[in-house]
Amino acid sequence: MKVAFVVYTPMTVLDFVGVYDPLTRLQSMGFIPDLTWEICAIAESVGDSHGLGIVPTQINQPLDSFDLLIVPGGITPLVYELTKNAQLLEWLQTARNCKLKVSVCTGSLLLGAAGFLNGKKATTHPNAYDLLQDFCEVVTDQRVVDAGDVITARGVTASIDLGLYLCEKFVGVDATKKIRAMMDYPYVVTIGRNSNDSR
Amino acid sequence: MKVAFVVYTPMTVLDFVGVYDPLTRLQSMGFIPDLTWEICAIAESVGDSHGLGIVPTQINQPLDSFDLLIVPGGITPLVYELTKNAQLLEWLQTARNCKLKVSVCTGSLLLGAAGFLNGKKATTHPNAYDLLQDFCEVVTDQRVVDAGDVITARGVTASIDLGLYLCEKFVGVDATKKIRAMMDYPYVVTIGRNSNDSR
Repeated sequence: MKVAFVVYTPMTVLDFVGVYDPLTRLQSMGFIPDLTWEICAIAESVGDSHGLGIVPTQINQPLDSFDLLIVPGGITPLVYELTKNAQLLEWLQTARNCKLKVSVCTGSLLLGAAGFLNGKKATTHPNAYDLLQDFCEVVTDQRVVDAGDVITARGVTASIDLGLYLCEKFVGVDATKKIRAMMDYPYVVTIGRNSNDSR
Repeated sequence: MKVAFVVYTPMTVLDFVGVYDPLTRLQSMGFIPDLTWEICAIAESVGDSHGLGIVPTQINQPLDSFDLLIVPGGITPLVYELTKNAQLLEWLQTARNCKLKVSVCTGSLLLGAAGFLNGKKATTHPNAYDLLQDFCEVVTDQRVVDAGDVITARGVTASIDLGLYLCEKFVGVDATKKIRAMMDYPYVVTIGRNSNDSR
């Protein structure tokens, strides 16, 4: 299994790292020994919304050789601007044949703008529900939304729950329990609504 | 307030990013407008345990000008090796006058080896409780342990709970609720034992 972790300026770095941690443990803990990944960017230099520099391992290469595409989000108006960036969308569209496309937070706006959410149920950060409506069939407030070949997660910290959800999908409950223990994560992965939601 | 986020090879990047996210929101959401930070390393090149490159902003500079020192952990035997690295410990010791020293996961082994946990109650990743005993007064399994000028957190994902705990300490409950909402974090910060602990 080959994973593309997409990184870009100005993403929210926890959106990326929350799912990166459990997924890379699939390899380092021996559950999927041949799991490989690249940190994929369209530009050489990548900074989060506060300027934190992340070093990509693949720059402006087509994404068509990956099995799993993972797109983090960022501050809503900034990511919404990126949904009009033709160069970025064309690059993301090279992933059209990836078996599974996944996003965290407003990353779903980018998946949507690339056309990957057509006819799909999806979620995003609660402050971007309205914006997502233009890019998918149904917006929902579930923490992780599995729509088959596309899985979307809610805001920022939902990245960890998404990661554990993917682990369970790939290697089952028992292996995921061991990953969860190594991450010292005591919280139940809430696939339904967040307990603090008003809507 | 000036924060030193220590990064080093081979840290666990989620240990760093989990607390980095809420703390940097203190500045970007306007709660502490003059909060500044540096990404501090002893070497120019920093990679997590899987080789992910993080770009430091200060290299091998003394840490004596910071108010808050934050040290992430990494894979237990690798970090335990670093507790014998005199150059790293001397560098960390330049933070001795920082008002608050904080660690995530096995980062507490480094705080301890630098002498900052003498006479203190502290915690770490559950798989490093025994190792921590040599470096502090009492090892506890609480998720976040506030020992005054030193605060330690348990494994990896406890970094987020630590970050929110620090936010509440610095700017109070109401501001922290807003940060928590932006992070879309529905889980209660468990300062006591993890619900999945056997001990």
